[in-house]
Amino acid sequence: MAKILRVNMAEQKVTEEAVPAKYRTLGGRGLTSQIVMDEVPPSCHPLGPNNKLVFAPGIVTGTAAASSGRISVGAKSPLTGGIKEANAGTPVAQMLGRLQIKAIIVENQPQGGGPWLLRVTANGGELVQADLLKGKVTSEVNKALFEQYGERVGIVTVGPAGEYQMTMAGICFNDAEGRASRYAGRGGLGAVMGSKGLKAIVVDPTNAPGVEMQNRRLFRQGERKLLEALHTHSITKPGGTLNTYGTDALVNVLSEAGGLPTRNFSRGSFAGANKIGGETLMETIAKRGGAGKSGHACGPGCAIQCSNIFPNADGSERVSVMEYESVWALGANCEIDNLDNIAEMIRLCNEYGVDTIEAGVAVGVAMEAGVAPFGNGAAAIRLLHEVGRGTPLGRILGNGAAFTGRAFGVVRVPVTKGQAMPAYEPRVMKGMGVTYATSPMGADHTAGYSVAQEILGVGGKVDPFSVEGKVDLSRNMQAATAFIDSFGYCLFVSFAVLDIPSGLEGIRESINGVLGTKLTTEDLGKFGMKILRTERRFNKLAGFTKADDRLPEFMSYEPLPPHNQVFNVPDAELDKVFG
Amino acid sequence: MAKILRVNMAEQKVTEEAVPAKYRTLGGRGLTSQIVMDEVPPSCHPLGPNNKLVFAPGIVTGTAAASSGRISVGAKSPLTGGIKEANAGTPVAQMLGRLQIKAIIVENQPQGGGPWLLRVTANGGELVQADLLKGKVTSEVNKALFEQYGERVGIVTVGPAGEYQMTMAGICFNDAEGRASRYAGRGGLGAVMGSKGLKAIVVDPTNAPGVEMQNRRLFRQGERKLLEALHTHSITKPGGTLNTYGTDALVNVLSEAGGLPTRNFSRGSFAGANKIGGETLMETIAKRGGAGKSGHACGPGCAIQCSNIFPNADGSERVSVMEYESVWALGANCEIDNLDNIAEMIRLCNEYGVDTIEAGVAVGVAMEAGVAPFGNGAAAIRLLHEVGRGTPLGRILGNGAAFTGRAFGVVRVPVTKGQAMPAYEPRVMKGMGVTYATSPMGADHTAGYSVAQEILGVGGKVDPFSVEGKVDLSRNMQAATAFIDSFGYCLFVSFAVLDIPSGLEGIRESINGVLGTKLTTEDLGKFGMKILRTERRFNKLAGFTKADDRLPEFMSYEPLPPHNQVFNVPDAELDKVFG
Repeated sequence: MAKILRVNMAEQKVTEEAVPAKYRTLGGRGLTSQIVMDEVPPSCHPLGPNNKLVFAPGIVTGTAAASSGRISVGAKSPLTGGIKEANAGTPVAQMLGRLQIKAIIVENQPQGGGPWLLRVTANGGELVQADLLKGKVTSEVNKALFEQYGERVGIVTVGPAGEYQMTMAGICFNDAEGRASRYAGRGGLGAVMGSKGLKAIVVDPTNAPGVEMQNRRLFRQGERKLLEALHTHSITKPGGTLNTYGTDALVNVLSEAGGLPTRNFSRGSFAGANKIGGETLMETIAKRGGAGKSGHACGPGCAIQCSNIFPNADGSERVSVMEYESVWALGANCEIDNLDNIAEMIRLCNEYGVDTIEAGVAVGVAMEAGVAPFGNGAAAIRLLHEVGRGTPLGRILGNGAAFTGRAFGVVRVPVTKGQAMPAYEPRVMKGMGVTYATSPMGADHTAGYSVAQEILGVGGKVDPFSVEGKVDLSRNMQAATAFIDSFGYCLFVSFAVLDIPSGLEGIRESINGVLGTKLTTEDLGKFGMKILRTERRFNKLAGFTKADDRLPEFMSYEPLPPHNQVFNVPDAELDKVFG
Repeated sequence: MAKILRVNMAEQKVTEEAVPAKYRTLGGRGLTSQIVMDEVPPSCHPLGPNNKLVFAPGIVTGTAAASSGRISVGAKSPLTGGIKEANAGTPVAQMLGRLQIKAIIVENQPQGGGPWLLRVTANGGELVQADLLKGKVTSEVNKALFEQYGERVGIVTVGPAGEYQMTMAGICFNDAEGRASRYAGRGGLGAVMGSKGLKAIVVDPTNAPGVEMQNRRLFRQGERKLLEALHTHSITKPGGTLNTYGTDALVNVLSEAGGLPTRNFSRGSFAGANKIGGETLMETIAKRGGAGKSGHACGPGCAIQCSNIFPNADGSERVSVMEYESVWALGANCEIDNLDNIAEMIRLCNEYGVDTIEAGVAVGVAMEAGVAPFGNGAAAIRLLHEVGRGTPLGRILGNGAAFTGRAFGVVRVPVTKGQAMPAYEPRVMKGMGVTYATSPMGADHTAGYSVAQEILGVGGKVDPFSVEGKVDLSRNMQAATAFIDSFGYCLFVSFAVLDIPSGLEGIRESINGVLGTKLTTEDLGKFGMKILRTERRFNKLAGFTKADDRLPEFMSYEPLPPHNQVFNVPDAELDKVFG
């Protein structure tokens, strides 16, 4: 019987609740956003007692459906001041799905003491004092908890940055082998967890009953169709782009397109692109051997396997995972072209518990202010240690790019709704600009990935520079993302299903199989829009207006080399996305 | 012939413009807010090229009217993100009035180099390179410029904080004897001046034609009535409260009322109140003698003379001025009860160029975070030196209380619209709470000083704890303030004119005398409301909503000892102020 766990941090009490009928068909982002809307006062302080932190696996998560091991985390964001959902691919998601835990709602704050550990089993949840974990980096937390609770558990944790309540702190989940490396990174959700005095969650899947399923035959039919699509498409198939090069394959693609933000968004191509792109990354991993691995899976059941493990020169393990966004943010955006430096920076972000995108953009803004020179990897590494130590400079950086910009009087700060832009220049890809501007999440590439059509030619091909049609494109992609994020599928299945209709049919059938519903493809789009409208409503009540649906002013008057584009989608067009 | 000086920092060009007809009857805040509305895009970055910084003396400023030496400064605020007006009492205001300069509009930004000095004379303005002033504290700037341009000039400057573009930087004007001590302090206008590369303005009044006057007889009749009222009322008369004790007289009054925010707004009365209040201040000044002085005038022509000069134990001058707000913010709010420590802190704020209110509240928040112990004056002084040196910790504090709260994860942060609350607890004085919440300026006691009625019994007496009637009270006081701020009168004339009708008549006649208008008393209130609505419109276009017209959440759930009041004016009531 599916249930919700409610964790009251003020009373250190965990209660089980039946799932209200209105939440029955919701999961992942759809459920976290709805619970936040229903239970969190939009005007509350994000780090105060009235915010809540909600975890929810997707609808099919915990089943055998391919690439469906996603968990969503929701709250009011201390970074944007609006609603936030971030998700990660991790075995923890599948454990919660199999335990039939629809959601964990963490509320209120302890009077003092802490940090606390939440232990979740088939019998419910309990809070345990966790003083020994205080201040620990994420790998130490995982090591200690695997030792104590056994290797089969799943672990959720925040690093020191979350304890400091830094607004670029993320929430860390273990990967398939137990590494503290899979992040619901964006929007400062780690700070919310820190504000609750909750350092970690241990999930023990022993005796999990498995995901309830209404129509197993339909589910199986659907998951097979999806798997076939994933195994067919050149981007997602075994030996395909993602499996071979990982997401980092995009560095060269975007740099060649003039849309790879470089040197704090002052150029669109990076001279050092090839030194840090997927091809070089794969070669380096292959050459060094040892613990290195391309085509690594973030969790069991992934058909795509785009993750990797980056080794040191001697073959010993350095860090997982060298993702495009992370390599770009801490690399090209800071003009750093040394993969080992970048790997160390990603490792530090994982250890201290911060979003690599926000961290890289914050460092880029600090470099623009002259705090450290562009291109200097050693200096950038020192900056990340400041974050980990919680020094005043670390407090500045740790609160993200917009905060760093204000600290140092920098005007060229690439953020929307206070959140750092990811690795796609909106002046070059206008559709991404529309998504950054209007997504309820703030600047977020995953919120509506029009790069597919604008650069990659997946799901059609459109001119990236053109303004025409970008409002519709962004809206459609935002809606599609919202339903994908709700059902537990990895967003990367989109590459296949945008081009292969039977893949989307498979997704739909797998969902209907689990829920016993008769959702049509059209329903899925509507479902996505409904989630977006709920999120926008929360933001409106929190004080957001059209003025928040805008890119930073400098992008309208500062042309970006080499194509010298500005962001020129008219405000009135932006307002049509949800108008 | 009245004129506007337009200063283009990008081209280093100063041009004179005729005053458009629609600006003819505007001055001070009325004019700065209208120009900001007309010329500044509400969505612009406050420190970017599209913001403008506007200076305007009041309508009667430069005449012999009592206590009318005010200058308004306006811009989009980098602290609140909304429109901002701050004003100061200074001979500079009178010089501009006598030079018939209605406004100085500083726009755009220099490509590099700087800092620049703007020289204003009867012949117009010119920009001069001022490399020697770079990084100088305000007293050094004044010393250098008086030496170079003679003792008769007026000087406007920013300290290092303004050059750093810290959002608690103010703009400093000289007092009657040339001290760098009179501040348009609030809202980070010093950062805007810094962002323009403008370090200082020298105003030379030689050959000033004087204020144009349409009906000198009426003006004289009016100014005499006002002077008589000021000389009659117990608060404003020579030897009255303000002249004898200065504004610091309020420390004991507010502490006894339980409304003196203490220890970062966690209590309403301060055990050390009497050690820092006006009575002790006056005695200390009298006892130490030497350079010390109570009843000091900020500029010529002041009938009230509430300023002071605080001496060291040996009689040498320490600082001017020990104002209630400054003594409270850096004293009671930080639990510091040592007048010499407080005097040094005010001196440092003046030198580095920051708003004492924002500085004191930021230090209080930092103390709450454990950065320094409450009550430790030496530690607080060290914090202010961090601001002056622009260290990372100084960058945090220098960006104000809200910024400091976010840096350190502190939820109890007493701000509205990002601006620190002054020395009146809104949980105790609900009318002040309504003003803090709804003023377009953010939390600001001068924006609608209902303390007059709620505590002082001036203009009537109402129960401070009661919610009833506070919306109307706040609205009326906000409108009255807006017109007072526009005509150039010091807000302290209100004490007299609220109780003595002929005083208000005098103000009206003096204005009509200068302008040749026939404004009625009713017109003055309408005039004030019109300014407020212009300011609110700017804020709306900048993205402000009802959600910004709220006090911080903690004030609704945390009762304030000793009266254990919470802020309980319903949201719907707050929305009626400008509804």
